[in-house]
Formats: sequence, C-alpha cells, structure tokens
Amino acid sequence: MDGLARRYVEVRRQTDRLAEPLSAEDCQAQSMPDASPTKWHLAHTAWFFETFVLEGPPLAASFDYLFNSYYEAVGPRHPRAARGLLTRPSLDQVRRYRQQVDERVLDRIERGLGDDLRARIVLGLHHEQQHQELILTDIKHLLGGHPDWPAYRRRVPATAAPPAAAAARGPALEWIARPGGVVEIGAAMPGESGEPFAFDNESPRHQALLRPYAIASRLVTCGEYRAFMNDGGYRRPELWLSDGWAEISAERRDRPLYWRDETLFTLDGERTLIDAEPVAHVSYYEADAYARWAGARLPTEVEWEAVAATVPIGAHDNLADSEAFHPRPVAADAAAHGGLSQVHGDVWEWTASAYLPYPGYRAAAGALGEYNGKFMSNQMVLRGGSCVTPGSHIRSSYRNFFPAGTRWQFSGIRLARDA
Amino acid sequence: MDGLARRYVEVRRQTDRLAEPLSAEDCQAQSMPDASPTKWHLAHTAWFFETFVLEGPPLAASFDYLFNSYYEAVGPRHPRAARGLLTRPSLDQVRRYRQQVDERVLDRIERGLGDDLRARIVLGLHHEQQHQELILTDIKHLLGGHPDWPAYRRRVPATAAPPAAAAARGPALEWIARPGGVVEIGAAMPGESGEPFAFDNESPRHQALLRPYAIASRLVTCGEYRAFMNDGGYRRPELWLSDGWAEISAERRDRPLYWRDETLFTLDGERTLIDAEPVAHVSYYEADAYARWAGARLPTEVEWEAVAATVPIGAHDNLADSEAFHPRPVAADAAAHGGLSQVHGDVWEWTASAYLPYPGYRAAAGALGEYNGKFMSNQMVLRGGSCVTPGSHIRSSYRNFFPAGTRWQFSGIRLARDA
Amino acid sequence: MDGLARRYVEVRRQTDRLAEPLSAEDCQAQSMPDASPTKWHLAHTAWFFETFVLEGPPLAASFDYLFNSYYEAVGPRHPRAARGLLTRPSLDQVRRYRQQVDERVLDRIERGLGDDLRARIVLGLHHEQQHQELILTDIKHLLGGHPDWPAYRRRVPATAAPPAAAAARGPALEWIARPGGVVEIGAAMPGESGEPFAFDNESPRHQALLRPYAIASRLVTCGEYRAFMNDGGYRRPELWLSDGWAEISAERRDRPLYWRDETLFTLDGERTLIDAEPVAHVSYYEADAYARWAGARLPTEVEWEAVAATVPIGAHDNLADSEAFHPRPVAADAAAHGGLSQVHGDVWEWTASAYLPYPGYRAAAGALGEYNGKFMSNQMVLRGGSCVTPGSHIRSSYRNFFPAGTRWQFSGIRLARDA
Amino acid sequence: MDGLARRYVEVRRQTDRLAEPLSAEDCQAQSMPDASPTKWHLAHTAWFFETFVLEGPPLAASFDYLFNSYYEAVGPRHPRAARGLLTRPSLDQVRRYRQQVDERVLDRIERGLGDDLRARIVLGLHHEQQHQELILTDIKHLLGGHPDWPAYRRRVPATAAPPAAAAARGPALEWIARPGGVVEIGAAMPGESGEPFAFDNESPRHQALLRPYAIASRLVTCGEYRAFMNDGGYRRPELWLSDGWAEISAERRDRPLYWRDETLFTLDGERTLIDAEPVAHVSYYEADAYARWAGARLPTEVEWEAVAATVPIGAHDNLADSEAFHPRPVAADAAAHGGLSQVHGDVWEWTASAYLPYPGYRAAAGALGEYNGKFMSNQMVLRGGSCVTPGSHIRSSYRNFFPAGTRWQFSGIRLARDA
Repeated sequence: MDGLARRYVEVRRQTDRLAEPLSAEDCQAQSMPDASPTKWHLAHTAWFFETFVLEGPPLAASFDYLFNSYYEAVGPRHPRAARGLLTRPSLDQVRRYRQQVDERVLDRIERGLGDDLRARIVLGLHHEQQHQELILTDIKHLLGGHPDWPAYRRRVPATAAPPAAAAARGPALEWIARPGGVVEIGAAMPGESGEPFAFDNESPRHQALLRPYAIASRLVTCGEYRAFMNDGGYRRPELWLSDGWAEISAERRDRPLYWRDETLFTLDGERTLIDAEPVAHVSYYEADAYARWAGARLPTEVEWEAVAATVPIGAHDNLADSEAFHPRPVAADAAAHGGLSQVHGDVWEWTASAYLPYPGYRAAAGALGEYNGKFMSNQMVLRGGSCVTPGSHIRSSYRNFFPAGTRWQFSGIRLARDA
Repeated sequence: MDGLARRYVEVRRQTDRLAEPLSAEDCQAQSMPDASPTKWHLAHTAWFFETFVLEGPPLAASFDYLFNSYYEAVGPRHPRAARGLLTRPSLDQVRRYRQQVDERVLDRIERGLGDDLRARIVLGLHHEQQHQELILTDIKHLLGGHPDWPAYRRRVPATAAPPAAAAARGPALEWIARPGGVVEIGAAMPGESGEPFAFDNESPRHQALLRPYAIASRLVTCGEYRAFMNDGGYRRPELWLSDGWAEISAERRDRPLYWRDETLFTLDGERTLIDAEPVAHVSYYEADAYARWAGARLPTEVEWEAVAATVPIGAHDNLADSEAFHPRPVAADAAAHGGLSQVHGDVWEWTASAYLPYPGYRAAAGALGEYNGKFMSNQMVLRGGSCVTPGSHIRSSYRNFFPAGTRWQFSGIRLARDA
Repeated sequence: MDGLARRYVEVRRQTDRLAEPLSAEDCQAQSMPDASPTKWHLAHTAWFFETFVLEGPPLAASFDYLFNSYYEAVGPRHPRAARGLLTRPSLDQVRRYRQQVDERVLDRIERGLGDDLRARIVLGLHHEQQHQELILTDIKHLLGGHPDWPAYRRRVPATAAPPAAAAARGPALEWIARPGGVVEIGAAMPGESGEPFAFDNESPRHQALLRPYAIASRLVTCGEYRAFMNDGGYRRPELWLSDGWAEISAERRDRPLYWRDETLFTLDGERTLIDAEPVAHVSYYEADAYARWAGARLPTEVEWEAVAATVPIGAHDNLADSEAFHPRPVAADAAAHGGLSQVHGDVWEWTASAYLPYPGYRAAAGALGEYNGKFMSNQMVLRGGSCVTPGSHIRSSYRNFFPAGTRWQFSGIRLARDA
Repeated sequence: MDGLARRYVEVRRQTDRLAEPLSAEDCQAQSMPDASPTKWHLAHTAWFFETFVLEGPPLAASFDYLFNSYYEAVGPRHPRAARGLLTRPSLDQVRRYRQQVDERVLDRIERGLGDDLRARIVLGLHHEQQHQELILTDIKHLLGGHPDWPAYRRRVPATAAPPAAAAARGPALEWIARPGGVVEIGAAMPGESGEPFAFDNESPRHQALLRPYAIASRLVTCGEYRAFMNDGGYRRPELWLSDGWAEISAERRDRPLYWRDETLFTLDGERTLIDAEPVAHVSYYEADAYARWAGARLPTEVEWEAVAATVPIGAHDNLADSEAFHPRPVAADAAAHGGLSQVHGDVWEWTASAYLPYPGYRAAAGALGEYNGKFMSNQMVLRGGSCVTPGSHIRSSYRNFFPAGTRWQFSGIRLARDA
C-alpha cells in the first residue's frame, strides 16, 4: 500500500474513532453558531475530499449545499448556525457516505496521482485533523452546556484527589532570556519541492527583527490564575482591554469557561480543579489581563516561534494521540529543552499578534485559496497546538487563529516580557 | 382493566406511535424556540404524570429541571430555546423513562384513585394529546426547514395529479345566516360532577350577546387564497393590520408557510398544491388581511361556537386518527349539518377574539393553575381542531391560542360577516 | 369669528404653549422609538392639517416624507425611530410652518366649509389634542431618563412635606355594586347628524351583556401599590401573566416607572412620593398582577363605560387644563357621583379588554381610515383620560390603547370584581 | 502672553468656530453610538481640562458623569449611545462652561506650571484637536443621514461642472520603489526632554525590518473606484475578506458611504462626483478588496511611515485649516517630494497593520493611561491625517485606529505591492 494511502486510512479512521463514544443524538446537536455537530464534521470532511479530489457526479445531490463550510467559489451553502437542524442524512448515512468517499479516494490513489492531486489529498488530511480537534472542542462545548456536565467518555475518576499542596503549585516559573536581532520564521511555500506540509498562511519563510526578550519556562497554571481572580482580576478595569472589559461586564464573567468553584468540566466529566495544571479555556482578553496583572505581556508570534523552533515536537507524549484530552502539569523532562516546557500540544497559547498575512503571502488560486487568507481580520494568532491536536498536526510554524473573545478552544497563557 | 387505565394505555401508545417514523436525530433537533424536539415532548409528557400524579423520589435527579415546561411553582427549568441541546438522556433512555412512569401510573390506578388524582390523570391525558399535535407540527417545521423537504413518512405520491379544474375549486362558498340574541357558550367548570372534561379556560359556561351575522359554509381554499395573492394581497398595506404589515415587510413574506410556486410541503413531503384544499399555515394577520380583501371578516369565538355546537364532532373521519395529517377538500356530507362543513378537525380557524378570561373564570390552585391562565395576553383564539388533533381531543368549546404571527400550526380561515 | 375658527385657534395655541418651557434642544431629542420629539409633534400636527384639509402645492417639499406618521396611503416616510435625527427644519422653522398652515386653514374656514372638510378640521383638532398629551408624556420620558431628573417646569416645591399619615392613605376603597344585564356603550357613528365628535373606533353604539359586578370607588394609590411591592409582588410569579413575568425578569423591574426609593419624577422634577396619590406609570402586566394580589381583577371596558357614563366629565378640575400635569389624591366631591371618584382625567385606567373592533365597526375610507383601525391587535384598552389629557378631549366612550408593557403614559389601576 | 496660553486660546477658539454654522438642534442630535453630538464634544473637551488640569470642586455636579467619555478610573459615566438624549445642559450653558474652564486654565497657566501640568495641557490641546475632527465627521454623518442632505455650510456650488475628462482622471498612478532593510519608525517617548508632542501609542521609536516594496504615488481616485464597482467589485466574494463580505451582504452595500449615482454628499451639501478626487468613506474591507482587485495590497504602517517621513507635512495647504473639508485631486507639487503626493491631510489611509502596541510600549500611569492603550484590539491603523485634521495635528508617526468596518471617517486608499 502506498504511503499516502496508509496515511489516508489512518487519519480517516481516527476521525471515526473520535465519534465512537457518541450517540446519534450527541452527533446531531449544535451548541452555538461557532461550533458544529459531530455529524456535520464527519460529513464535511468527506465532502472536502469528494469536492477537491474526486471527479464525476456527486454522490448525493444536496451535499454540496449541506456540507460546504465557507467556499464561496463552490456555491451557496446551508447557513452555519442551522447545521444542527440537518437531521437528514442520518449519522448512519453519513458513515456510509464516508465509506463511499474512502473507497473512491483509495481507488484514485491506487491509479496514481499527479502532484496537484497528491497535494490536495495531503491538504485534505490536514483539514481532517483540524476537524478532529474541532469534534472534541465542539462536543465539549455541547456537553459542558448541559446542566449535568455529562462526560464524553470516562477515563478519569471524578473524585481524583488533588496532588499534595507542593506538587499542586508545580515548578516555579523561570524566565528564559532571548537575544534581539534578526530571526527567520515561517514555513516554505507549500508545494515547494521536498518541503514538509504547511498551510499557506505559514509562508513564506521570512526574516523578522526582535528586541531582546524573555519568555516563561511554562504555561500559567490554574493556581496562578486563581490568584489573579482572588486579587479582583475580573473587577479591575485597568487590567483589561476595553473590548474585553465590555465583554466580561456584559456576560458577567468571573472565571474561565468550564469552571465551577472547586471543579472543572473535562471530556471525562466534572472533576476537581488541580492547581498545577495549565489554565485553559480563557479568551485573549483574559490572557492579556492576566499578563498585565502579572507585570508581563503575551509573546508575539515571532518571539514564540523563535523559541519554539528549538524544542522538539515530541518533547512529551502527545495528549491527543494518547487520548488524554486534557492538559497536564509540567513533566520532568523540561530541563532538556533549554528550560522550556509545555510548548507543543498542551494548550493553544494566545500571542500578542493579530492574524495577518506574512510579508509576501499569496493565497492559493481557486476555491482552496479561501482556506486561510480570507479570515485575516479581527482574529489573534494562537500557537503550539493543544491536548486535542493530533501529534502529526503540530509544528512550530503553525498559525491558529480565533477572535479575541474565544474560549471554547483549549486556549491558555504563556508570559513574555521585555528583557 | 379500569376504563381509565385502558384509556391511559391507548393515549400513551399513540404518542409513541407518532415518534416511530423518526430517527434519534430527528427527535433531537429543535427548529426554533417555539417548537420542541420530539424527544423533549416524549419526556415532558411523562414528566407531567410523574410530577402531578406520582409520589416518591424522582426517577431521575435532573428531570425536574430538564423537562419542566413552564411551571414556575415547580422550580427553575432548562431554557426553552435550548431544548435541542439536551442530547442526554438519549431517545432510548426517554423511552425507558416513559415505561417506568407508565408502570407506576398504571399501578397507582390499580390501587384505586380519589377524585383529585383521577382528575389529574385525565388532565395528563389531554395534555398528552396536545403534545401529540405539537409533535407533528414541530417535526413538520423541522423537516420543512430542510432544503430537501424530507417526508415525515410517505403515504401520498409526490406527483399526485391535481383534480380536474371544476373539482379543484370545490363547492361555492355559502353564507349561513344566524340570528342575534343571547347565546350560551363555554364548558361547565372542570370537575363539576358528571361534566365531560374541559380545560379551565373554557369555563364557566356563560351567556353572550350576538348581533345577527352570517358565517361561511366552508374554509377558505388554497385556490381562493391564490386569487388574493395574485391580486397583490401582500403588497397592499390597506388590507393589513399595522403589525401584520410590519411583519410581512420585515420577513419579505408573500405566501403561506410551506408553499413553493406550485407545490407545498406536507408531512408526506413535497407535493402539488391542490386548489380545493383549505389553506393552512397562515398567520392571524394573513387571515385578517384575506378577510378584508374578501369584503368579510373573521368570526368572533362566540359566533363560531354558537354555530359549531350544532355540528357533531364526528362529521367526517378524523384526519389525525386516520393519520391523513393534512386537510382535505369539502366532503359530500356537509348538507346534513345545516350547510356547514370543515368545522372540526380540518384546520384551526383564527377568530377575531383575543385570548382573555371568560367572565367568572378562575384558574386552578397550585402549579396546575399555570396551565392556561397565565397566557391570557397577546394571543388570539383559534377554534375547531386540525388534521393533527386527535379526534377525542376536539370539542366545540375548545379554545386554542397563539400569537397573531404564528404560522407553523395548521391554521386557516373561515369568513364571517355582519348580517 | 366662526365657532370652529375660534376653536381651531384655541387648540393650536395650546400646543404652542406646551412647548414654551422647552429649549430647542429639548424639542429635538427622541428618547425611544415609541416617543417623538416635541418638534416633530409640532410639525406633524401642522402637516396633518396641510395634508387632509388644504389643497395646492406642499409648503415644503420633503415634509410629506418627514412628518407623515403612519399613513401608508400618503406614501413612504422617515423611519419612526430616527425622528430625533431630523435637526432640519429647525424649531423656529417648524413654528413658522405652523403659522403658515394656520393662516391657510383659517382662510379656508372663512371661505366656508362643506361637511367633509368641517369634519376633517374637527378630526384634526382632536388629533392635535392627542399630540398635546403625547408632548407631555414624551418629554417626561426624555427628562426622566436624564440622570439629573430635570423639571419640565417648576411649580411644585421639591421638598413638599407628605401629608400626615392618615390623609396619606386617602379614603378607604369602597366597592360599588352594579347589576348584570344588557347595557349600551359606544358612540354613534362619526358624522351622524348632530352627534358630538368621537373617533371611529368608539362606534357603533351597541349593546353588551354584563354579569353583576362591583367596581372600586377610586384608583389604587401609591401607598397600596407599595404594600404590594413590600409583599414581594415583583418576586412572585404566580401573580403575573407569563409575558409580564418575562418582562420584569428581563428588565429587572421592581417598581413603577419614575420611582426612586422615596421620591418620584414628575413634570415638576423630583419630589416626595405621596401615598394617597394614584399610582401611575404602571404597565398592564403590573396592573393585572396588582389586581390578582388584591384578590380582584381589572374591569372590562364595557363594565368601565357602563359606570363612567353616569359620572359627569367635569367632576373635578381638569388637571391638564389647569396644568397640574400629575394625578391627585381623591377630592371631597366623590359622594355626589354614586360614590365614584377619579373616573375622568386622573390616570388612564387599564381595562381587561383587548383593543378590537366593536361589532359592526367600519373604518373610514381613504388614508384617514388608517387612523385607528389598523392598530387593532396586540394592544389593551385604557379608559378615562389622564392628568395630561385636555378637558375637552375626555369622554366616557373614548378608547385609548397601548401594548401591555407600556409605562410611559400616565396609566394606573382601578379594581373590579365579580359580584 | 505665554506661548502655551496663546496656543490654548487658538485651539479652543477653533473648536467654537467649527460649531458656529450649527443650530442648537444640530448640536444636540447623535446619529449613531459611534458618533457624538457636537454639544457633547464641546462639553467633553472642556471637561477634559477641568478633570485633568484644574483642581478644586467641580464646576457642575453631574458633569463628571455626563461628559466622561471612557475613563474607568474617573468613575461611571452616561451610556455612550444615549449622549443625544442629554438636552440639559443646553448649548448656551455648555458654551458658558467652556468659558469658565478657559478662564481657570489660563489663570492656572499664568500662575506658572510644572512639567506634569504643562504636559497635561498640551495633551488636552491635542485631545481637543482630535475632537475638532470628530465634530466634522460626526455632523457629516448626521446631516448625511437626513433625506435632504442639508449642508453643514455652503461654500461650493452644488452644480459645479466636473472638470474636463482628462483632468478628471488625474495623473497616472506611479509606483515608488523602496529598498528593504532596517528602518526606524515611531516617536520618542512622550515627555522625553525636548521631544515634540506625540501620543504614547506612537512610541517608542524603534527599528523594524522591511522587504523591498513599492508604494503608489497618490491615492486611489473616485474614478478608479468606480471602475472597481463597474467590474462587479461588490459582487465577487473572491475579492473580499470573509468579514467584509458578510458586512456588505448584510448591509446590501454597493458603494462608498455618501455616494448616490452621480453625486456625493459633502459638508457643503450634495454635489457632482469628481473622478479625479480621492475616494473617501470606504471601510478597511472595501480598501482591501479594491487593492486585491487592482493586483496590489495595502501598505503596512511601517512601510507607510518609512515613506511618509520623507515628505514635509506642509506639502500642500492644509484642507482643514483652510476649511475646505474635502479631499482634492492631486496638486501640481508632487514631483518635489520623490513623486509622492496626498500623503498628509487628504484622507486617512487604511494600512494592512492591526492596531497593536509597539515593542516596548508602555501606557501612562493613572486615568490618562486609558487614552490609547486599552483600545489595542480589533482595530486597524490609519495614517496620514485627513482634510478635517488640523494642520498642527498631523505627523508621520501618528497612528489613528478604527474597526475594519468604519466608513464615517474620511478614510481612503493608497496601494502598495511587493517589489
């Protein structure tokens, strides 16, 4: 079997596996316009291959309308906020649709691929991995809105005793100093020969100028974030961006998403809050306010990538591949990586950078050019990958992006400061 | 078996039967805040018996929160607009919950009932029948919002040839003249000995004064309504109440709900529009505008009931019991009932009466007093029952009520005029 | 001078007089979509005469667009919610426009009038009086929304000592019993020969059937309303209509409009709350909840008119003509009117009746037919006139109407109950 | 007289002068939450001096509440969207308030100032100049929303014949090439000795790295923008950012603000559209879409400043100081400035840069620290000053910022491209 075919099967099976703990009802509901039903993710990712890889008549007449996400060039589509109302096709029919697409794609691979088609399949697999993450964040949002906080699946006992106080705090935060000067970040243009896959928004690789700075050795913990809360963090306007203050005032927010007083909601259901764990599910506004309270700031994406590129991706077990699906306290191996830990695959780290094109950026031609470029306004960049990002989908140049008020992603905080 | 027990089983089974053609997905989704998921209807009607009939600890801890509709006296409840997000309990669990409730209620009946408990069970069965109707109107709204117009079930071929032109128009509309004077309408107080069941809002039976009037022999047909549309009905403000004009302008409405150009959506899916059928799914505003265009008006509920009480309920086969689930052209038997046809069980007929308490009305004590009385503002009365109202739930004194803009119910038009 | 000319001058001057205490700024602002700027009222009432009485080219090209309120037959118009943005024409220009219209109308009267034109001028004067009331309620709403509660004008000292406790309660509420039977209410058709003026919605005069009932001798006082508040009136859902409960919950309401803890806002600015005064600025929901708490109900409009017709309109000094502009405690002369007081010209009394056409109602032809009829949905009837209704504009058959949540009118409560 | 005193008087008088053509009504109204009434601008700018410069008891008790714009540290304030409802104080009272503040500030200057107070007065004058610009943009928005498009003042005849076709196009657009490398931009920290005034957000002066690029010699003209419109610019989603496409679709936009078919609205009222004039009143989305259509992009703020710093500010007569208040076609003197024209004081030029802190940025301490820093999210940077920006308020390092959808500012387009 062709390496790409094997990879195709592997990635597609993983998507199916993520939906396994869920009932047809769970896969149907849409908790908010920004989140999609699991069933829709299952169908849309298949539609992506059907549309951009396969030829011939559509497998089902209305799927172009139902399962197009945002490709204007493909045509009109079902309103995003109403995805949860598409009870037809059923979950079983969507599964069969996925199989039909799989058969055809594998058959197509077997018949031999040109560069363009190969690139489209590779893109489709990375697209699929993005949706694997979204399946988990979206179902967490759905179940987290249920008054009973039902578990996606139960691996961790709810009454897990928190670690002893000392351990609970985790290691002290260290400041890793970095020199100023010209650095190079970003990924080579997609499709450039021999280059590993990257989305178009990561390119071109280019130089940037840094001033000396320092970056925190680890993520901000729940315990530290609680100190901010206890110090009146949510009641002091001087700590907040104006938009952020308006948002927490209007929504009467006083804590991260999924927190109760001493517990939090995880994909394993409700369990005790552990101080040493990284805080997650905070907005950019909360991250920024916390940083200001701590006398620090968030790193820019250039500062972040300049450091992250020195840390091997597999520095600890991938929390998505091992199905932990929740960030963990600092592990013992940090020293090996220049003192840095929790860089990849713990929580998405809000940066101080707006999501804008890199100098020299060019979107792909055609419908796939809508993949990333048209979203370059009103969003902030997040880096690092989270505990629900597949291991093979994490890289230092990866630019994730969400509006500043977003909280349903596994988003957390790493501090920086001027040297 | 006790007559009440038999009746209980019968009614409850019918509810289950209505959900049979539906998948777990279909039963999960909520198309708008005013409609509820089928699963929620199934659970709520069981919860009603558990709460108001059974004693002892609750069968499931959170059901009081999840499945309370609007009883403030029972406690807080899940927001109405978010019922579609309750993926737990599953449809299967809800079915088991219904069985558990059934066993307990039947056991309770067997142990002998006092008057109060018997009355509560009877109320619960009428409540269940109301939700049987809502299951059908709500699922029609869900499927009618799907771009494919999928059928709830398929009994009628989609390409049914419309009847020949003459038949298509149906019989000419006749005006049945009625004298003025004092009439008596309404039902005796619920619980008064020997009286058949009625909701509290139908009582007390009381006198009202009428002026001479005439009422239409049949409902307004689709063909007649099309003539109104073709005459610019939706573009002439002088025909409309101000609120109605604002609504059709804002929503860009130009036809009844579920109409395309030559077809309409039914519970059997899309099919050809038949001119002789009664128009359905119009709002009070549309009914009122049509009447003004036709040089007529809508009847008051007193006028309606004074006439309807002379027509036997079973004047034609009940369209819900026979599972037709759509109104039909005038049948041949109208002559037998003073020239009146389509009075009971075709479409709910908008009246010119606001939903207000009858003189001397008193709500029941306790939580059940919230059943009807607290909704007596900003709604109009509809009469007659529709093609999705169970036959044993139809009576001439029955007062249905909805806001003037409502269209997802099977609501139609009967004209009246001053004599 | 013709009697109508004299009347015309009198009414028009009174409108001007009401605007005198106000600056150009005060006359410009619009506090909410339901209220209009004083300047707009001044212009619209002149436009009404220009449009429906005068002939010839318009005095200003765009006034048909700017100052048409809601007459679809006249043409498109400036959005209601944006009236406060029309800084041109200026207040001075609007005053000149009024003068121009006055000259032309008086000239027209002098040249002799046919019946139709005479009727249109009479209608215009009643229309003008309606807007006199609205000028006061709307400016009260504007100034009442200012954090300083500035006075429209100052006649009453702010620190008026409340009357001694006994007087403060006012006379005890008595129940006036009324027999059942057929009564006649309403006004003769407008234009019927020799009949005094009435709006079309008051006609035709017709019979109605009453059951025996009792009606309160006076209005509910501020002191009584405070007892309701102190008894948890705003926290007990069982007292409220469902729509009302939703409204006070969403708006976090716990008292009438314009109340602080011990003071209230009047057109004379802030002053001490006086227990013996009638409560004003309550919604239908609040009136209905109060009545339920008091073990009573609101009267229907038939019940109200059957009683009110026995009380002469000038039973006490008119509070608008004397420019008191606030309701007063019960005066000493009530005994003379069958024990009833505060029937006309104190506060508008919410009735239990929805605003619907009387049996046999017919709207006028043409644009003026839009005056009343098209608003006959989603509103409740109020009766009696208020302390800002001109004396000559009050009559027992008068039907005022507002949505159930309205509070910026001088609206209060008279109780009724079944006999 | 002290130089600062003379400057104070000069700037303050200019504000008064801008309000002179306006009536009390014009100064009262607020056309949208983002715009403020002229009267409010007049009062707020005085309040700024009273609050941050003067000592002693407040001149009027509630002004801190009424005229605080957004300083959380000063206390609660009147809701921004309701500024148009503050009819008290009157325009005359506000003018007197301004005089009282002026007397006290001038007296304070005369008594001698320390560095901090002097800096606060200088800041207050720059703040005043910002509001001078807003007075004009906000009144333009108010009058531009009036159906008659009334003029703020009339200097330009409405029927001005457009220039002959050739002139109408203006000079051809040239591309000015710029090398890559490290450049220095920004202003020195405010208060650093001897440095001219700059807002804190312009500092610190710092290095940035550029790639070779080219920048357009002049602004995009109305004629060029019409070509974009005629080429389907508003109907082709591939040209738009996703947020921009959503906005123009929802608002049904198909042209810049203040455009009719062949005319546009200016502060002199309606007049013929002139092709050679710079397009103004476009959003960032429109600027970005235009650039994409033209095969170019917007410059970053670094690219812009690196070029603009080479052009003297007074390159042409200032259009605000000369009260032209509208941008003009390219003048003849461009050649003298490296081929660049219309850099300062024509229209604000949208850049491709999000409004974020410069590396090393620190906000001032206390309430004044809220001046700029807290708005650093969800906005884009505009550069260059417009035809309503006072000449002494323009500088190359100036960073203006607005949300991407903003159109009521004089905002236009300069293109850039990679070299």
